[in-house]
Amino acid sequence: MKLSETIAAISTAPGEGGISIIRLSGENAFSKIESVFFKDSIRKIKIQINNESSHTVHFGYIFDDTQLIDEVLITIFKNPHSYTGEDVIEISSHGGTYIAQKILALLLKHKVRHAEPGEFTKRAFINGKMDLSQAEAVADLIRSKTDSAHSSSIKQLEGSLSEFVYKTRQDIINIVSLVELELDFAEEGLEFVKKEEILNMINKLNERLRNIIASYITGKVIREGVNLVIAGKPNSGKSSLFNYFLKTNRAIVSSIAGTTRDYIEESIIINGVLFNLIDTAGLRISQDEIESEGIMRSHKKIKEADLIIYLIDSSDTEDEIKKEAEHFNKEYKKENTILAFSKSDLSNSGSTDRGIRISLVKDESIETLKKEMISMVSSGKISKSSEDIILTNLRHKICLENVVNSLDEASNTIKDGMSGEFISVDLRNALSHLGEITGEVTNDDILNNVFRNFCIGK
Amino acid sequence: MKLSETIAAISTAPGEGGISIIRLSGENAFSKIESVFFKDSIRKIKIQINNESSHTVHFGYIFDDTQLIDEVLITIFKNPHSYTGEDVIEISSHGGTYIAQKILALLLKHKVRHAEPGEFTKRAFINGKMDLSQAEAVADLIRSKTDSAHSSSIKQLEGSLSEFVYKTRQDIINIVSLVELELDFAEEGLEFVKKEEILNMINKLNERLRNIIASYITGKVIREGVNLVIAGKPNSGKSSLFNYFLKTNRAIVSSIAGTTRDYIEESIIINGVLFNLIDTAGLRISQDEIESEGIMRSHKKIKEADLIIYLIDSSDTEDEIKKEAEHFNKEYKKENTILAFSKSDLSNSGSTDRGIRISLVKDESIETLKKEMISMVSSGKISKSSEDIILTNLRHKICLENVVNSLDEASNTIKDGMSGEFISVDLRNALSHLGEITGEVTNDDILNNVFRNFCIGK
Repeated sequence: MKLSETIAAISTAPGEGGISIIRLSGENAFSKIESVFFKDSIRKIKIQINNESSHTVHFGYIFDDTQLIDEVLITIFKNPHSYTGEDVIEISSHGGTYIAQKILALLLKHKVRHAEPGEFTKRAFINGKMDLSQAEAVADLIRSKTDSAHSSSIKQLEGSLSEFVYKTRQDIINIVSLVELELDFAEEGLEFVKKEEILNMINKLNERLRNIIASYITGKVIREGVNLVIAGKPNSGKSSLFNYFLKTNRAIVSSIAGTTRDYIEESIIINGVLFNLIDTAGLRISQDEIESEGIMRSHKKIKEADLIIYLIDSSDTEDEIKKEAEHFNKEYKKENTILAFSKSDLSNSGSTDRGIRISLVKDESIETLKKEMISMVSSGKISKSSEDIILTNLRHKICLENVVNSLDEASNTIKDGMSGEFISVDLRNALSHLGEITGEVTNDDILNNVFRNFCIGK
Repeated sequence: MKLSETIAAISTAPGEGGISIIRLSGENAFSKIESVFFKDSIRKIKIQINNESSHTVHFGYIFDDTQLIDEVLITIFKNPHSYTGEDVIEISSHGGTYIAQKILALLLKHKVRHAEPGEFTKRAFINGKMDLSQAEAVADLIRSKTDSAHSSSIKQLEGSLSEFVYKTRQDIINIVSLVELELDFAEEGLEFVKKEEILNMINKLNERLRNIIASYITGKVIREGVNLVIAGKPNSGKSSLFNYFLKTNRAIVSSIAGTTRDYIEESIIINGVLFNLIDTAGLRISQDEIESEGIMRSHKKIKEADLIIYLIDSSDTEDEIKKEAEHFNKEYKKENTILAFSKSDLSNSGSTDRGIRISLVKDESIETLKKEMISMVSSGKISKSSEDIILTNLRHKICLENVVNSLDEASNTIKDGMSGEFISVDLRNALSHLGEITGEVTNDDILNNVFRNFCIGK
């Protein structure tokens, strides 16, 4: 990535809309726009950005040579007072992707480079406008689809994680200072702090860090939602339940076993938790080639699921229900599966000690099912972090685990009675891993990993 | 619609993106934003729009009471220098729909009304920022998905249709003046212009108008694309051709007849023409309940299609092919159907005088098919308008037809030897219908019809 290059991308969502924004950033952003933007519709009056103030908006026309592309508004942001810290132009064009792409193509023709995913934010990071954890918060904020995801990412953007890193860093530096002070005076045989006290400080710190690491499971649910597969034999009511949750007729439903072939995926939010619902082909041995392909895909989805609702048709024969229940008990784990007996309005069967009896004609029974879904997600899995920080990012989790490991090593080094130099090395490793979170310590691999998860245009 | 109400809507496309725009317009737009927007993150510094210039951008924080919703940029447009001609604020927020909706919900809580589709543009029209045909061009511009749609709508936005209406209006007014001048001097028995001359003027004008009305068929294709249904017996290769066009495996393909049940729809652009491809269930008498439902839907789609590709499997038996060809000749119209013999690599059958032999393993044969598709669309249907105007809007077409009818009536009135008063009434009717295009003559019904076709936020 050359910072000197001027980059551009469409920053709004693709699709049909009233306005799209094309963003342009870099040394030549202003001269590039000056060559395609006119204040009048007959290409007589050029704009001179030097004569205009930062943070001002101008109406005009984008031309590709003599062809009018669109009437637009452009906004001028002069460096360093912009998102990236560079000269930035935002072009507000009519409608959705189509015209925006024409304008983007025009800029590319003028030797502007198409921005990589997250490149604007990457430049903001490199130019010191935000630290790395804040840059990642931008990506999370953009992706947020629930209240909890939104509030955790806006907190992180405002610096809650950065602050925690800064505090922890101070704690470790304090320990390092004590150890190194000790080192300086070791020859004189002075002992400022008892080893036990340092061990105690490290342990206390590690406990707090482990607590925060544990919050990651919550964080994952917050960020990505719960993949919930509806499984069961053909005609056990999977598609009907799926449609019921979505309140539409998304999946074709019939009384014929084997109706669903391609799996279907849709999202719903229950009590602020995002569920990615997946309706699958019914599980059976099938001679039908297409259905078999669907069943193969079902098994794959079940294996990958965070949570499974397994349906047994309670209007089936007693024998069949027993067989299904046995199969279920053998193949499915209690931790991530809810057993439900469907069509409970048609039959009294299926009253085992496990399993919820549901009927789509009785709303209460579905409410019970929903409660069970929420409780499965929160029970044990969601551990409240006392630090008021919920780790939502795998990279942060790994960094913190590395910090904990380095601190553990420091503990062991102390317990082994080794000299302060060795303890200091371990502690400095911990500091380095901590610095990776905010990007004080970084390298190309880390940066590439972080920013390739962004959408283009941010 | 009360113009005094302040309205708001999300103006960018829904979905995942880097930036979303919420637009706010009306008398109280500024005071509304002052109550939720702060320049700092601790809600100490309010913005005072009165002290800020129009067309300036400000960084700050949107709060719902004490809860931070987002870091945003707001742009101030002071009336009349805005899109609507009213006081306007545009809020640029992080990410896609989710946060934008939170901000919108907050504004609604502050008694801002959610804008109806096209209401911003409706206000622009009412406040004299554009005429009605230009407002409609905005809607077309937003929807444009091809070069031809884009260039016809940007032309219209720049006033090409308005100009034509203005010119035509002058022409009619000239005729009216002649007729009415005649009237004034009728008692004196003077004849300024021969009746034949006036008839000639009306005829010439009507010929031009008819020419432009004829361009509407082209316009419809430009604007909405061609609905192209792929039809044929089960297993004739419909889904394979569909996937081939899309260059993906969108539809499940198998050697088993009856694989496709739900129809699938995707768009492609060939030579600048938008085709809405529809893959349907194969046509046969089926005992399968689900497949039968699919076949019923196929027949409906075929009936509604602009263009049909009918596939006959050339690897089928000679008898079967003959039967299919007969069925095809009986049931399908030549004007809108392309007959194609699929799997031509497998067999030499199907070399009739009609029909294209295609094979998905030979790219040339598909190129031939594509050429045929384009030529079906353009032959006869696309008539070039000498006026350099292509009518893309049904409303404009109907208005112009009414103008033509009124002018024809004027002709008849003249031929019937009736007095100038009657001729004048017909001509003034023509003027009134013409004025409906640009909105000089309008009413609530017309306006509601025009603006309900807009997306929300524009």
